Amino acid sequence: MPLSESTVLISEVGPRDGLQSVKSVMPTAAKCAWIDALHAAGLREIEIGSFVPARRLPQMADVADVVRHALALPGWTVMALVPNLQGAEAALATGVHKLTLPVSASEAHSLANVRKTRADMLAELRRIVALRDAQAPAVRIEVGLSTAFGCTLQGPVPEDEVLRLAEAAAAAGVDEVGLSDTTGMAQPAQVRRLFTRLRAALGERAGAAHLHNTRGLGLANCLAAYEAGVRTFDSSQAGLGGCPYAPGASGNVVTEDLVFMFEAMGIATGVDLEALLAARAPLRAGLPGEPLYGMLPEAGLPLGFTYADGRLPRTPSIPRQAAA
Amino acid sequence: MPLSESTVLISEVGPRDGLQSVKSVMPTAAKCAWIDALHAAGLREIEIGSFVPARRLPQMADVADVVRHALALPGWTVMALVPNLQGAEAALATGVHKLTLPVSASEAHSLANVRKTRADMLAELRRIVALRDAQAPAVRIEVGLSTAFGCTLQGPVPEDEVLRLAEAAAAAGVDEVGLSDTTGMAQPAQVRRLFTRLRAALGERAGAAHLHNTRGLGLANCLAAYEAGVRTFDSSQAGLGGCPYAPGASGNVVTEDLVFMFEAMGIATGVDLEALLAARAPLRAGLPGEPLYGMLPEAGLPLGFTYADGRLPRTPSIPRQAAA
Repeated sequence: MPLSESTVLISEVGPRDGLQSVKSVMPTAAKCAWIDALHAAGLREIEIGSFVPARRLPQMADVADVVRHALALPGWTVMALVPNLQGAEAALATGVHKLTLPVSASEAHSLANVRKTRADMLAELRRIVALRDAQAPAVRIEVGLSTAFGCTLQGPVPEDEVLRLAEAAAAAGVDEVGLSDTTGMAQPAQVRRLFTRLRAALGERAGAAHLHNTRGLGLANCLAAYEAGVRTFDSSQAGLGGCPYAPGASGNVVTEDLVFMFEAMGIATGVDLEALLAARAPLRAGLPGEPLYGMLPEAGLPLGFTYADGRLPRTPSIPRQAAA
Repeated sequence: MPLSESTVLISEVGPRDGLQSVKSVMPTAAKCAWIDALHAAGLREIEIGSFVPARRLPQMADVADVVRHALALPGWTVMALVPNLQGAEAALATGVHKLTLPVSASEAHSLANVRKTRADMLAELRRIVALRDAQAPAVRIEVGLSTAFGCTLQGPVPEDEVLRLAEAAAAAGVDEVGLSDTTGMAQPAQVRRLFTRLRAALGERAGAAHLHNTRGLGLANCLAAYEAGVRTFDSSQAGLGGCPYAPGASGNVVTEDLVFMFEAMGIATGVDLEALLAARAPLRAGLPGEPLYGMLPEAGLPLGFTYADGRLPRTPSIPRQAAA
């Protein structure tokens, strides 16, 4: 699907960002059933898991198996998060299409989150790029600059520092540098300004918007990023990954709501909303008791809804909670 | 407060739109305590109630008393909804500053909601304008075009019809014509397009954006309306007025979240967020058991938050649910 003015790529991060944030461990077979349903809904990029020690994140212990399952499905990009060189080695061994590495824009967050300075993370990134160049040159590498819009430890993060880090990551040889509102502190004017600067500085290497709905501004921020030229958006089915309505939480933008916004605006996502709503059923089955979020799943598609490409839903107006 | 590029007017509709949608009847004293707290938070326009027969809406039986209470508070505009001439007569007798009349953009909704055609509503509007001109020429009249972005009965509403109605209302002598997403069907591209047309057609008489969060797009739609030049926004404290997260509901945009978005963007609202959060306490006291919504009240102000005018919050970062 070519990314034109009226097309965006939705990058589903639920199996990684979502599942590593919930307490329960989703069984491998349930993960695979959910991933099959996400693929069937037309998603074309998925962040499938983290290559981290199982003792640190038991939710991700089966990541290699899950990656292999996802790689067997055609026509999508399977991405894995790697926090370091060791993770990258393990990920590349599975044949994954794309690696994503989080680099904190805030020094305080970097030290707290990965116990490394930002400079050390950039050095690690260079080692990962060298490994990729040597072993798997077709694999793409993305950096997500976390806390790019503010940090719960240090407060505001200077935009010049974010830009400097983005340029350093691009200079290190990564293919895409995105910006993440890890802490749910972004607002639309800032999102527009920072992505405009990122695109001016990095051109084609300017990457995804990864925005949270902590203070209700998730979709407004996505709209602002779109207006700044961003065409790849991270989101999570059912807002998995930090409860978006719970105290202090930092939930991801809900994929269902994001896809609805773009399709309603006439911006094609390639995602079938009815199939996406149906994918909540295997998610619910695999995570019993875990709250699932989203406004569209509650309200249903409005009467007269038309997809961006002119298709009509199979039912004229989807009754609320029809799928799950 | 002059409305410049970096200033908006938040029109709080909770005491009318909110209270008439909940099942319980809030006691008059509790309403007045809540309204005092909203005034103390810096709100400068409030929709205080509906002048409708008490047998139809017992929640509004005390509307005249509540209007008189609100009129005793200085420096704000007290507005009442009137569905017809009889309501306008009763409202004008209280000395209210402003009347608002709902006119359905959808003929189906008009017949279902007020059992009148749109043409009949325009005729009623002309009678209300004549009454105002004769009795209280200083009173402003606003029309809110409901179902302007879609109707649950008929589906899409042609934009030309919305514009024609807006022009007819302006020609009838009303001061402001706003657009309401009564059914939560609006999307940002449509909001921008329709308000741009409204402003081109009506100039200074183009009025408020009244947007709902039914499918999660409330704040994104407000952002789009702002970008189209809208500077007055209706919203409801705690999202009162249709549960925003409940099946099929059509909740108003949450005032707390809307004020936060604008202030964080550097667009002054004149509202003190800490005092606004504190106003949830009398609301909760007056409506025990009624769910209160909002993301900002859950998450609190982010560390380093600054108001548009440069003020800092009294606490550096408001702990979640500090106020209520």
